[in-house]
Amino acid sequence: MSVTTPAGFLASGVPAGLKSTGAKDLALVVNTGPTFDSATVFTSNRCKANPVLWSQEVVKDGIVKAVVLNSGGANCYTGAEGFQTTHAVAEKVAEKVGIGAIDVVVCSTGLIGLANPRQNLLDGVEAAHAVLSAEGGADAATAIMTTDSVSKQAVVEGPGWSIGGMAKGAGMLAPALATMLVVITTDAVVPAADLDAALRAATRVSFDRLDSDGCQSTNDTVTLMASGASGITPPLEDFTAALTQLCTDLAMQLLKDAEGADHEIAITVVNAASEEDAVDVGRSIARSNLFKAAVFGNDPNWGRVLASVGTTQAAFDPADLDVAMNGVWVCRNSTPHEDPATVDLTGREVTVTVDLKSGDARATIWTNDLTHAYVHENSAYSS
Amino acid sequence: MSVTTPAGFLASGVPAGLKSTGAKDLALVVNTGPTFDSATVFTSNRCKANPVLWSQEVVKDGIVKAVVLNSGGANCYTGAEGFQTTHAVAEKVAEKVGIGAIDVVVCSTGLIGLANPRQNLLDGVEAAHAVLSAEGGADAATAIMTTDSVSKQAVVEGPGWSIGGMAKGAGMLAPALATMLVVITTDAVVPAADLDAALRAATRVSFDRLDSDGCQSTNDTVTLMASGASGITPPLEDFTAALTQLCTDLAMQLLKDAEGADHEIAITVVNAASEEDAVDVGRSIARSNLFKAAVFGNDPNWGRVLASVGTTQAAFDPADLDVAMNGVWVCRNSTPHEDPATVDLTGREVTVTVDLKSGDARATIWTNDLTHAYVHENSAYSS
Repeated sequence: MSVTTPAGFLASGVPAGLKSTGAKDLALVVNTGPTFDSATVFTSNRCKANPVLWSQEVVKDGIVKAVVLNSGGANCYTGAEGFQTTHAVAEKVAEKVGIGAIDVVVCSTGLIGLANPRQNLLDGVEAAHAVLSAEGGADAATAIMTTDSVSKQAVVEGPGWSIGGMAKGAGMLAPALATMLVVITTDAVVPAADLDAALRAATRVSFDRLDSDGCQSTNDTVTLMASGASGITPPLEDFTAALTQLCTDLAMQLLKDAEGADHEIAITVVNAASEEDAVDVGRSIARSNLFKAAVFGNDPNWGRVLASVGTTQAAFDPADLDVAMNGVWVCRNSTPHEDPATVDLTGREVTVTVDLKSGDARATIWTNDLTHAYVHENSAYSS
Repeated sequence: MSVTTPAGFLASGVPAGLKSTGAKDLALVVNTGPTFDSATVFTSNRCKANPVLWSQEVVKDGIVKAVVLNSGGANCYTGAEGFQTTHAVAEKVAEKVGIGAIDVVVCSTGLIGLANPRQNLLDGVEAAHAVLSAEGGADAATAIMTTDSVSKQAVVEGPGWSIGGMAKGAGMLAPALATMLVVITTDAVVPAADLDAALRAATRVSFDRLDSDGCQSTNDTVTLMASGASGITPPLEDFTAALTQLCTDLAMQLLKDAEGADHEIAITVVNAASEEDAVDVGRSIARSNLFKAAVFGNDPNWGRVLASVGTTQAAFDPADLDVAMNGVWVCRNSTPHEDPATVDLTGREVTVTVDLKSGDARATIWTNDLTHAYVHENSAYSS
């Protein structure tokens, strides 16, 4: 049910002819109120797609009444014509729903540099509007899939209110929300400023710590809408905790479905001088192709972990680092310790722990291994 | 002939039993003078191997009389015992050659965390010393190979003087000289300070612009020794130009032999506000797994180029970028231009040009594609 679990939301997903397979490729999520508060975070990539350029203006006043999303084309680097397509889609949604286009967030995903067929999108909006329903969450979640093998949905319940979400993304997952579209709904009563604070806190420790392949997308958007239909205003702390739980749930679903991955790897950096240091070190390991290929080969190659740590500016003594893989401390004080042969990497879940011995901050970065299937999927994507 | 082409150098390469195959794995290069000026650059990785920690002390006075190198083990993160092994090897070279250990640079390459068998190394030094010769360059170049499929040697001739070099490295090539061992010799008369300036200038535009897989090694060392045996002091400008040519030649040999690569990719960024911006943008593209996998698939996916450009802080207008692949301007003013289908990527050499339209600086970064063979080679390396 996901985005339609909270009261006050309708959703749908239909085929609009953007995917050559005839699969669902256009989703619509509408907030029926009574409140229309919202918060949105976008990709930090400076090369932003047309839907992002449009939606950045939409969200400025904290009011979002509908989100329309399409797979089958990113509408990025398609020029003025592409921007006009985004605008036309927002206008069509506004006309059908009876709202202003300036309250319609538009999201697109797919290949860059490919113009989306405007008429297909406009006809798709008509079709999606016609089947909007309070049970439409699953169809919407399906319609935004690209190379995802499964749709991603999650719900977290509070006392008398709930949060629902859907997500897509199976590659190009990197910091600052790379290639990810997420729509989150809640029927709690939460003013826009509080939604913004809660969303930034939640994404900082969930989507922002997912680094599947180090690549940042041009289209990422995470939009949170509050309908207020429950009539309940939860303590902001409770709401933020529930939202963080929901975002983490969706992030883990994205991690598990990353393109061609054989392993999910959780890299935890402990005893760092600062959380920033811990994130930097974790990310440097997550981006080492050598390390990631070693995990694919079930090889507990801790040398490649330390080689990555050494490329950062974090506070640590190079001669006093500890590294564990799946709980086995293969390196203590920067020298070999337990036998790497006792590390079993055959399961999908892998943990790496790096002890910097320089403070008490910590962070976990999630990534995947580098596999033949990743290379295959990403070398054949557009050809 | 490589390192033994310039007068005043002896070299050899022998099997010391570090490689299980029985192949040559220990090399010795000795400067017989009359001058012993030198310059050396090391990896910028903060996690440095024992031979680097040792050699950093050796080079401080600008005098290097011999370089001993082994493949079959990096001697990195092997603790005090590992450092003592490096020291013992330097002492043994000093004893045999009749010099001080403090003038002996030691280089190692191979797996991290693996102690090198000290007696094998010491016996290897004896054997290598016994067969030192003015024709030993090729044997030395062979002895430093790890996953290299061919040995790398180069010579540049000046009027009455010459420069010779050998290199190893076939993966983990990244800025700041990752996993690369290079020994360069010259019979020109050049004081240490000038050698240092020339070497930094030459490596900055050659080895430092090679970014095969974004991974930085713990062991990289480039040592330049001048014997002065020609009796000629060339103008520093001429010497620097010749040295740059030699380093570029060796860098291109490393690029062409990168692990599992199907393509050599030259990414040239033009009209940047600064050379630093050009390098940053080029490197961001060189590190995009999605872009590199696309090249492997012969897919001219310029969207992945722009998505990488957007992750940098370089000066440019996201709405006004041009991209060419193999000379075809597939993107002009951030919109699709010539048909990507006309880009032929079936050859090994690929060029990418990005026009930032923000100044007149430029730089080229060299990288490889991301292939099944890369994943295979790096997932099976130590297992």
